Amino acid sequence: MSSGKGGGGGGKKKEVKKETKLGMAYKKDDNFGEWYSEVVVNSEMIEYYDISGCYILRPWAMEIWELLKEFFDAEIKKLKLKPYYFPLFVTENVLQKEKDHIEGFAPEVAWVTKSGKSDLEAPIAIRPTSETVMYPYFSKWIRSHRDLPLRCNQWCNVVRWEFSNPTPFIRSREFLWQEGHTAFASKEEADEEVLQILELYRRIYEEFLAVPVSKGRKSEMEKFAGGLYTTSVEAFIPNTGRGVQGATSHCLGQNFAKMFDITFENDKGSRSMVWQNSWAYTTRSIGVMVMTHGDDKGLVLPPRVAPLQVIVIPVPYKDVDTTAIVNECKKTVEALEKAGIRADLDTRENYSPGWKYSHWEMKGVPLRIEIGPKDMANNQARIVRRDNGAKADIPTVDLVQKVNGLLDEVQKNLFETAKQKRDACLKIINTWDEFIAALNDKKLILAPWCDEEEVEKDVKARTKGDLGAAKTLCTPFEQPDLPEGTTCFASGKPAKKWSFWGRSY
Amino acid sequence: MSSGKGGGGGGKKKEVKKETKLGMAYKKDDNFGEWYSEVVVNSEMIEYYDISGCYILRPWAMEIWELLKEFFDAEIKKLKLKPYYFPLFVTENVLQKEKDHIEGFAPEVAWVTKSGKSDLEAPIAIRPTSETVMYPYFSKWIRSHRDLPLRCNQWCNVVRWEFSNPTPFIRSREFLWQEGHTAFASKEEADEEVLQILELYRRIYEEFLAVPVSKGRKSEMEKFAGGLYTTSVEAFIPNTGRGVQGATSHCLGQNFAKMFDITFENDKGSRSMVWQNSWAYTTRSIGVMVMTHGDDKGLVLPPRVAPLQVIVIPVPYKDVDTTAIVNECKKTVEALEKAGIRADLDTRENYSPGWKYSHWEMKGVPLRIEIGPKDMANNQARIVRRDNGAKADIPTVDLVQKVNGLLDEVQKNLFETAKQKRDACLKIINTWDEFIAALNDKKLILAPWCDEEEVEKDVKARTKGDLGAAKTLCTPFEQPDLPEGTTCFASGKPAKKWSFWGRSY
Repeated sequence: MSSGKGGGGGGKKKEVKKETKLGMAYKKDDNFGEWYSEVVVNSEMIEYYDISGCYILRPWAMEIWELLKEFFDAEIKKLKLKPYYFPLFVTENVLQKEKDHIEGFAPEVAWVTKSGKSDLEAPIAIRPTSETVMYPYFSKWIRSHRDLPLRCNQWCNVVRWEFSNPTPFIRSREFLWQEGHTAFASKEEADEEVLQILELYRRIYEEFLAVPVSKGRKSEMEKFAGGLYTTSVEAFIPNTGRGVQGATSHCLGQNFAKMFDITFENDKGSRSMVWQNSWAYTTRSIGVMVMTHGDDKGLVLPPRVAPLQVIVIPVPYKDVDTTAIVNECKKTVEALEKAGIRADLDTRENYSPGWKYSHWEMKGVPLRIEIGPKDMANNQARIVRRDNGAKADIPTVDLVQKVNGLLDEVQKNLFETAKQKRDACLKIINTWDEFIAALNDKKLILAPWCDEEEVEKDVKARTKGDLGAAKTLCTPFEQPDLPEGTTCFASGKPAKKWSFWGRSY
Repeated sequence: MSSGKGGGGGGKKKEVKKETKLGMAYKKDDNFGEWYSEVVVNSEMIEYYDISGCYILRPWAMEIWELLKEFFDAEIKKLKLKPYYFPLFVTENVLQKEKDHIEGFAPEVAWVTKSGKSDLEAPIAIRPTSETVMYPYFSKWIRSHRDLPLRCNQWCNVVRWEFSNPTPFIRSREFLWQEGHTAFASKEEADEEVLQILELYRRIYEEFLAVPVSKGRKSEMEKFAGGLYTTSVEAFIPNTGRGVQGATSHCLGQNFAKMFDITFENDKGSRSMVWQNSWAYTTRSIGVMVMTHGDDKGLVLPPRVAPLQVIVIPVPYKDVDTTAIVNECKKTVEALEKAGIRADLDTRENYSPGWKYSHWEMKGVPLRIEIGPKDMANNQARIVRRDNGAKADIPTVDLVQKVNGLLDEVQKNLFETAKQKRDACLKIINTWDEFIAALNDKKLILAPWCDEEEVEKDVKARTKGDLGAAKTLCTPFEQPDLPEGTTCFASGKPAKKWSFWGRSY
């Protein structure tokens, strides 16, 4: 690239001259933050944009997002969710209708005040989430119990103009998500759906992204602003010792129904308020996957979400006919594609096989197949796994079957390895001193807690520092025994539950 | 719905109390504007929003959008288009880089100036289109001829804060679209893609939406701001005598490449500028379909885009067992679904069959199947077509096959009927007097033109009025003979081509 090329944009923060450098400048264990930036840029998932906190999602990220969407959208359609698109904009008046809700979001709301050179009559907000955009119309559409349940989902962008450290995928000012919004006649139905959706989120993380998560319930302090209760799937990044909220499924109770007057004539002829849920997962999920599986060679992709599952690379030798090798590679790709495997070949002549190996390792492709003259002669191909580097020479006739088996193995191994690493960080503590030691030791802390908001605030205050304060991540649904007389690690009062604590993203 | 329900939003403009009223208040021929609003609201495609020019897309519209997307996205993936997502925001500096481009869009740009209670350092624009968002990064990503072609597509929302009369789908301040942005080494490749994409747009209109369109080239005045030339598919609405631009495929030439410094090392080792295209179609396409096929009973949906192709309605009789009828209806739906037909049944007990007929006619479902005791006894079902009201009693054993055939027939008939109506409006003229007469007569005018910008401006000035001025719609690729000596209808100078003229949306 010629110097002096500008175009006004690009990589203010991370000016990586080559799209895919060979080798990484940073190591995951040495400088996690720089390592992460390097992986997402060099793998061509992300390009930094000239507005801080905004990122360009390139095909290597978008194709993962599309694969996740394909799964999730089909699942929620089975649950009778219908597609909607509500406007990007919301008036100040409506946005402020639910007091707790707007308190939670107000500092991050972006306001449009001008069009062309004219001032708007009144500022208009860009949706940080769409409860207040949608619910005035729920009020209009829902009249009778026959209109229930109402189940809306939209795939869209939202904007939260945060000022804390922006990180690609994990914390950005604009991001993509789906947001489901539903209304039911009874709390039981709402409660049931909260968990159905949470289970889909668990599957996205564990079955697709191969990231182990814990299902649980958020504390009163951490729940959705204006809601009744929030459930979430929580992941953990061993390298930084931070929890990361994977996705949330909220029961809003009847709070918004009250504010927006969403009532229905029940089967006894009198009016009741609806019970509502909202739930979302975002492009953050891709970042959590990168952090979990990536290594010092770059990205590592679980096969189920890899845009490319197998890269086939011809390995020509001097004085050997390369046409035959390339043809064999093409045949291999065709055979794999025919079996439903996402495969491609890299026939670029201006790069060496070694450069290509590094390139596709950087991009995290789960399997590499190398075919050279010796392989041709022996009717075999070499398969190399990205997750553990294992190599095997496989007879051509067995190749497709072997690849299918290996893709399953890689998927499973990534999850098992991540789970072992996560579990190795788990520390059950009982006292404040143990808590602080575990926090300094980057542990995922499970602690007995009195479940009082004042105590959580106190823990936050006492752990404030450069790395950020500790807080509750969630109260896991899977609870260890809580023997009578167990006391809260922070307050000394009787403990009511075990909760996960730690720093978080 | 109880009176006094507010919720702060909803239907400021069109307060339609019942979602699907029985019968329409307006007729297509008497008051087209009100008729259109009524159709899109009563069919449950659109809900008016409390910000003017913004609309809620309900499932009945979004499912059509998804069906169109499924087709188009698969087609462009065959052309090696890759999915991207670029940010919603663009800085003032970058937006203004291409002078003609920003002049075209500046009056409609929405500006974010505040986040929370703080003023931003500099105002940030919301994308009206993404040329200036993307091209600084094209400059970064493209270095060698091996990086070409670069082919990006994104599905997203854009904002154009227009002040002219907003109309659902047709002219809204926020709308959904896909935007393709590509860069090539040669003009030939760019030219070829412009037409490949235009053909896909034709197929969307003609094969899916059953709306006849003309392919052609825009005049210099009407071309994309900053581009080299613009091609489009143009539809025509006989009732209003207005043309409507269906979708555009632009060759941008090297203009943006120059401004954003997008160059590549060619195979001779020196640097060249890329040739670029951009192209888009929007949710407007749904509005054009509604205007084309709708009638005084409401929406009429072409089967290929109908969220529901067949509605099955039980017709119970007094003292006859309804369970058996409902079971027969269920079996019918199952058989249709098994054959890949989108079918559902309406078993609601609080509505009469007659009400249901009107309801699903309002929503435009292509075929209705009625099953009553007599049909059961005769092993048949009654099928009623939405497009022409034709009724037939079909033996149960032939039902699926018959439905498949009828869906094809309805699709074809809608297109043929629309084409006949459109063609009946076509008026070839040669003089100014004929032009004015045809314009007043709501014709689609094909006129010999000298192809001079000053003349088009003059025509606009001379036809100004309440209904809006006339302008060129496009110069169709299919040109009638232009005998030597033919003169321009407006200037009397030698004519260079036949162009479509008229008022437009």
